[in-house]
Amino acid sequence: MGKVRAIITTSLDGYVAGPNQTEEEPLGVGGEELHEWMFPLKAFRERHGREGGEVTASSPVVEGWTENVGAMIMGRNMFGGGPGPWDESWKGWWGDDPPYHVPVFVLTHHEREPLEMEGDTTFYFVTEGIEAAMARAREAAGEADITVIGGAQAIQQSLAAGLVDELEISISPRLLGGGARLLDNVDGPDIKLEQLAAVEGDGVTHVTYRVVKD
Amino acid sequence: MGKVRAIITTSLDGYVAGPNQTEEEPLGVGGEELHEWMFPLKAFRERHGREGGEVTASSPVVEGWTENVGAMIMGRNMFGGGPGPWDESWKGWWGDDPPYHVPVFVLTHHEREPLEMEGDTTFYFVTEGIEAAMARAREAAGEADITVIGGAQAIQQSLAAGLVDELEISISPRLLGGGARLLDNVDGPDIKLEQLAAVEGDGVTHVTYRVVKD
Repeated sequence: MGKVRAIITTSLDGYVAGPNQTEEEPLGVGGEELHEWMFPLKAFRERHGREGGEVTASSPVVEGWTENVGAMIMGRNMFGGGPGPWDESWKGWWGDDPPYHVPVFVLTHHEREPLEMEGDTTFYFVTEGIEAAMARAREAAGEADITVIGGAQAIQQSLAAGLVDELEISISPRLLGGGARLLDNVDGPDIKLEQLAAVEGDGVTHVTYRVVKD
Repeated sequence: MGKVRAIITTSLDGYVAGPNQTEEEPLGVGGEELHEWMFPLKAFRERHGREGGEVTASSPVVEGWTENVGAMIMGRNMFGGGPGPWDESWKGWWGDDPPYHVPVFVLTHHEREPLEMEGDTTFYFVTEGIEAAMARAREAAGEADITVIGGAQAIQQSLAAGLVDELEISISPRLLGGGARLLDNVDGPDIKLEQLAAVEGDGVTHVTYRVVKD
């Protein structure tokens, strides 16, 4: 059976997005900068249909994010389009060909028909919570892995429900001082972690943990 | 001129001590476990007068903590003895020969005469705040480095006052879920960091940042 991997980038002070998230600045003040280490990478550029780019110690990490992945889960804020009932014209931030290329299950309180995009990405909207989203993602992924790719709440819910096998965090050398903190709202001391790997990137550190299950 | 280095171990969720700090459990619930990675190391055991121990990727990191260090700064809680005016019988947690071997400046609101211990450790009690402690540490250290070795508040005050040149954090694979968080109470977005190094230890990740000054 494939694993469930939560994958995200945080600031050194543990935020995945800064304060004051708006439609213009969906990652809040300073949040976009968390990802700057990624933009020059060939592995990142290729996934977004661009040529060129660098190969660094971070390259295998970023390539690994999509290796053997059969389905993904994300939160409503990450998909975007504002809160409340859907404006059906909103099809995500990523244009006609999103960089996912697998079924993506979006956690939401508002029903919506599946949204088929180019490049084998289909967004499914799940209103029954994280357990239901995980069950549907497992059905779609078969023996492959499922990744929970953000934001903070989607990963918190997955961790709190005991659904995560591996936690992969890229730590950016920034202090945001506020915003959405990744590791809030989980019963921390009840979650046992084993460090699997730490990789020194260029302006980023990648750490991977296994969630130890009794 | 020597550098000022802030050196500490945190949980993955950013705490240097857990909730409910007491005299019996000075690092709070789960706090002692943050340091478990260190105890088997030869570099740690030697400093505490014990023989044997392991040499791992963490060894040069721990050895580096005291290399070229001429003075140290710590907070009152780290020195211990409870809050309020001093009980002069309290001489720290470390016995007659503390593992510091340099002048140590303790931030406190309560005056006390210097306390000379064995092995060249003398504790000086500074009531005039972090800037004064840093000035006295600089006088003692000369051209050597000064380390701020905890707790959270001492490092926060040093960072907020712009006194820190390097931040060296060892990240332990634990979630404490509460307690004393290292990177609270600093004006995060105003502090620019450059990642200098990341080292994969056995059950710990060591990251070092330079504080970029304009």
